[in-house]
Amino acid sequence: MVLPDHLTTRDGACLLRRADEADVAAIVALLAADQLGATRDSADDLTPYAAAFRAIDADPAQQLLVVVDAPGDVVGTMQLTLIPGLARRGALRMQIEAVRVQETHRSTGLGAAMMEWAIDDARRRGCALVQLTSDKARVDAHRFYERLGFMASHEGYKLRL
Amino acid sequence: MVLPDHLTTRDGACLLRRADEADVAAIVALLAADQLGATRDSADDLTPYAAAFRAIDADPAQQLLVVVDAPGDVVGTMQLTLIPGLARRGALRMQIEAVRVQETHRSTGLGAAMMEWAIDDARRRGCALVQLTSDKARVDAHRFYERLGFMASHEGYKLRL
Repeated sequence: MVLPDHLTTRDGACLLRRADEADVAAIVALLAADQLGATRDSADDLTPYAAAFRAIDADPAQQLLVVVDAPGDVVGTMQLTLIPGLARRGALRMQIEAVRVQETHRSTGLGAAMMEWAIDDARRRGCALVQLTSDKARVDAHRFYERLGFMASHEGYKLRL
Repeated sequence: MVLPDHLTTRDGACLLRRADEADVAAIVALLAADQLGATRDSADDLTPYAAAFRAIDADPAQQLLVVVDAPGDVVGTMQLTLIPGLARRGALRMQIEAVRVQETHRSTGLGAAMMEWAIDDARRRGCALVQLTSDKARVDAHRFYERLGFMASHEGYKLRL
């Protein structure tokens, strides 16, 4: 899909575009505002985030996206990663990570519009599969993903180093 | 870690190395021999796999690896993907996909040696997290990952396009 693009929500249209470095503080604020991210992320020191932004931005397999509302505030973010693989007859897959919607923009259809955009983008790029993992504590998110057609067919394992 | 490397198993040493295009048929045979992969993969037509191999091989974020036993047969495979991200203070993560060990080499410690190699490689590359998903039907695999220290903290969602 061509970016920037518009997403329609019950509160009006938002702009979806590729993140630039000036968005990093706003994205980190969304990550840190999250119930589970609160202990893991903080906007107090942006140095590690700026370095990570540059690594993401330089990698053609990555799309780090932000949603901007009419007043110009970053109210959503997600990261889309293309992963080539041999399994499933050489299927390209899209992985969605770090989906966040600002509290004030929940229940407006914005999250679903973001995910539908990602699924359309995956289809356009020839992916056979879209995948994501969601913390087992996020029960509301699970209902949301299931409504979109995702199946919780796998266990998602993490090992912190 | 420098490749090729040696993995020690109870049946002797195996060689771990980067896959090359001549390994594709053997890797697909491992994918197709798998109980869940049997309906999804077949070595009858290698064309889509060869194209996928070239995409994996050209992407510096991917390591597609094979394990070769003393007689020279491919008896294991895994794909390691580096994913940069902003979450968790700009953490780089390693994702492990498509782990397969030939039936005849199960219970020799080969699978654990492969995973330990991957975890060491992730550490060396500065990853803060190693992640993978495993089909909920693979109950034996779950015990295996848990013994290695992985936590099934997430639901793994998939959407086929």
